[in-house]
Order: sequence, then structure tokens, then C-alpha cells
Amino acid sequence: MTSAGTISETTHRVNYSEIDQMGVVYHARYLVWLDVARCEHLRLTGLSYRELEERGFRMVVAELGMRYLRGARYDDEVRVRCWVREVASRKVVFGYALHRVGDGELLATATTAMFTLDASMRPARLPNDVASRLLTTPDPVRID
Amino acid sequence: MTSAGTISETTHRVNYSEIDQMGVVYHARYLVWLDVARCEHLRLTGLSYRELEERGFRMVVAELGMRYLRGARYDDEVRVRCWVREVASRKVVFGYALHRVGDGELLATATTAMFTLDASMRPARLPNDVASRLLTTPDPVRID
Amino acid sequence: MTSAGTISETTHRVNYSEIDQMGVVYHARYLVWLDVARCEHLRLTGLSYRELEERGFRMVVAELGMRYLRGARYDDEVRVRCWVREVASRKVVFGYALHRVGDGELLATATTAMFTLDASMRPARLPNDVASRLLTTPDPVRID
Amino acid sequence: MTSAGTISETTHRVNYSEIDQMGVVYHARYLVWLDVARCEHLRLTGLSYRELEERGFRMVVAELGMRYLRGARYDDEVRVRCWVREVASRKVVFGYALHRVGDGELLATATTAMFTLDASMRPARLPNDVASRLLTTPDPVRID
Repeated sequence: MTSAGTISETTHRVNYSEIDQMGVVYHARYLVWLDVARCEHLRLTGLSYRELEERGFRMVVAELGMRYLRGARYDDEVRVRCWVREVASRKVVFGYALHRVGDGELLATATTAMFTLDASMRPARLPNDVASRLLTTPDPVRID
Repeated sequence: MTSAGTISETTHRVNYSEIDQMGVVYHARYLVWLDVARCEHLRLTGLSYRELEERGFRMVVAELGMRYLRGARYDDEVRVRCWVREVASRKVVFGYALHRVGDGELLATATTAMFTLDASMRPARLPNDVASRLLTTPDPVRID
Repeated sequence: MTSAGTISETTHRVNYSEIDQMGVVYHARYLVWLDVARCEHLRLTGLSYRELEERGFRMVVAELGMRYLRGARYDDEVRVRCWVREVASRKVVFGYALHRVGDGELLATATTAMFTLDASMRPARLPNDVASRLLTTPDPVRID
Repeated sequence: MTSAGTISETTHRVNYSEIDQMGVVYHARYLVWLDVARCEHLRLTGLSYRELEERGFRMVVAELGMRYLRGARYDDEVRVRCWVREVASRKVVFGYALHRVGDGELLATATTAMFTLDASMRPARLPNDVASRLLTTPDPVRID
């Protein structure tokens, strides 16, 4: 189970399908990495997203904000840090910072506000035991 | 309703997300165009894939064969021709030929063998009224 | 050539590759539709993105903001409206509103701030003739 | 450096972006995993695909064959085995077998014939030092 202040980390090696003809990662691909990072963050808290779905809940992206600072290239290894910025009864906000492992450059920052839905896709409260695992932590990098 | 020998046509303008750093369409993207072509072919026969799913059936790709002859580039318009090569009780084989609209070059050919499943994802016979709409036609280009 | 206040429109029929297991469009797919809408908007102004690249310029997404209001489903037709919100020497901000054609529901709104780069991927001023075509228009829907 | 008979292995955890509304991986996504597997196979032989490109060569998919046997689901871990089936002066054929790690089920098999191109995208001979690293091995599973 995660403690206050946990920032999870996943790494991803950029593959050929993700690069566009400018030779950098196409901007939409990052969203998949954020998704993977968020799911691993949930798993670290002791409840995987798969289990959350099995219990009849979904978390959907309601708002997305992203800043692209530098491009990642083919075969770069990228570290995605993920943390919880805010928890409310029906909404969880995650923050993300993406660095290139090789030179430590900050590539992008992002936030996603997630809404909780029930199995019929209606707004729902996040179950207490899940909400209580989602502890917020201050942003480790500036997000704006 | 389609008659024997129908070859349907869809066109697609190549967008930036589909191009890799060689400046040509990444090979996996074509499969989405085949999917769109196949669904439009079904729609032309008088039954859309959406309706097929609403009736409790799915058609899944069981086998795929594809030959890539020339690369498509950003902003190219590509014509995808689609036809039925073979219909059996549990299997439908579609053929595809992809040309660039601008210069008429043949870019790729493909076949997909589709299996029919029921709502529980078990093999199923294609309903007679659907099967009877899927009339085969000879290959308009050489597929091998 | 576009006049002040132009809002361009593209439509997209949701295909199977875009849907996730909740039965709605996966949130990252919308970014490709925005890209297509932006390129068609440029084409309407009399200069396609392909020509812009041929002249040695690139426009890259520097900031992205998106709000997801309702999910689009398989086979839905979606209308993407696109307009210019702001033009500066090195930055253009586009706005987007996505509606389902069938029932007119607003599905999502978005903004992207684009930076101009030269062929070496260094920040560059947008050529005057291009900038002068990019006329701003007030938001047709509330973006926040 | 690899020896004769090397079969490389990569694993991939299925993420949400890869699943369609049938609840299984959309068939086009597998091609990205094959690409990653092929690149890791090259890396194991002592020359990464990135280095190959830096030396002015590209390997492009010329033919693709795939059989889908069972669907992979969200959060499944999938093992992709990759090996060289055939090496000729301008063509390398890779084989692939995909198993689910959890229950060992064979999910799919595939082959891709790769052509070598030079930096101008013209057919080229694979450099001798690269070709000599690509040793063939018998298929570990039946591919047909």
C-alpha cells in the first residue's frame, strides 16, 4: 500500500509506431503512457484498475492538460512519474512528469482529471476503500 | 443491396498520426483502413456491422495476409477496394486492394479471414440472411 | 481563402479501432481528429500543412487542453469544428468543438497551442503570408 | 551476440488503449508488439535497429501473415517470441509466437518478410556484418 507522497514510476522504450515524420513521438501517443502510468499507480496502492472494473467501477478521463517541452525519439527510454494531485468524492486528479532517461531532460508534464462511473456509465462515488488509498502528494515539478 | 461481383470503395486521406519517421504510413495503420472498408462493404449489402453486433454476432479477424508494395505518404488520398472472396458457414474471406488516388499506384493488397462469434464469443454460424448478402467476386488484382 | 470568423468543419465516422472496452472512443483517439481538423482548416486558408512542411516549417503541439463531456460510440458520425483563437509570431492557438451528428450532443471541447519550428526543429516565426491567413474568430462554444 | 537457434523474448502488459469493445486486443495492435520484438531481437544480435538506421539502412515490412487464435484481455501479460526463419541478400523473414503468460495459451502466430532499403528508400543488400548475425532457427511452434 502506498504512503503519503508516493510518486510512482514506469518506463517506456519508444517504439517505431510512435514516431512521426518529424522523427519525434507523435503527441497523441503520450496519452497511452499516462494511462499505463496511472494504472500502475493504482496497482501500487493495492487495487488494480482491472479489479476496480470487476467491482463495477470505471475511471474516465474528464479533463486533460498537457505541455510538450521536448520531443522523444525512437528507442529513447522515457520515465513517467505519476502522482495524485487531488481526490474528491467523484473526481481524482493525477499529475505526470515525463523525463528522458538518457539525459534527464523533462519532455512533458500533464494532468488528467478522472471521473468515477458505475457499470451503467453513470457518475458514481469512488468506493471509500479506494479513495482512502489515493493519497495526494505535492507536484515534484512545476505543472502549469 | 449488393449484386454479385460488387467491389466496394472507400477513400482515406493519410493523416499525420499514420506516418512514421521514414515518411511513409506505418504498416500497422493499414489494418484500420481495411476494417473501415469491410464495414462499409457490409453496410452496402444492407446490414451494417453495428446492426450485426446488435443481433448478437461479432466478426473477428482470424487470419490476415498483407503485401506492401509502395509506401503511402502524408496527405495522400488512398482508395481501398474491398470484396468477398469466399463465404462458408463460419468464415468469410475479404480481399482488399489499396491504390493511391493521385497516380493510381497499387500500394498494397490484403486478405482477412473473418470468423463469426456469438455474444459469448463462441464460434457461430453467420445468419442466413447475412450470408446470402455476401456474394463473392473474382479478385480484381492479383493477390498472392 | 478564409475570411474572419471562419469555423471549419470535418466529420469522422467512428471506427472499431477507436473504441475501448467501455464501448466508447478511447480518449487519445480524439487528438488525431483534432490534427485532421487543424490540417483541413489550414487547407481552407489556402495553404496545406504539406506545403508548409515543403517550405521548411513545422507546427508542433506545445500545449493541449481537452474536456470530455460525453462518449462517442462505434459508427457515430462526429463533427469537429475548428477555428483560430489566437495568433502570435511563434504561436497559433486553435479551438475545437466536437458534436455527435445524430443527436447534436456536444462530446468534447479542446484547444491546442502550436509552435512553429524550422526544418532543424528550432523555434521560428510563422511566415507572414501564412500568419495573415490565420484569422481569429470568437469561440462558438464555451471552452474552459 | 546471438548463436544459431536463438529465440528472443519480450513481454508486454496489455494496456487499455489496445482493447476494443469486444473486450479483447484489437487485431492491429499486435503488429506493434511484433515490431518491438523484432527490434529487441536485432539488439540481441549486437546491432540495434537505431544503429542500422544511422548506417543508412531501413528494414520495411514487405509481407505480413498472421493467425489469431485467442484474444488477449486488458492487463494480460503477453510473451512474444521472435526468431529468424530465413535470410536472403535483400530479405529477412521473422517468425513470431505470442503466448499469454498467465495460462500459457498460444494467442497468435505471425511472420513478417522484411526488405532492406537504403536511405533513399531503394532496395539494398543487407550489410554482410548484419546478415551474418541473423542466424535462422527452426520454428518453435507450427506456423501456417
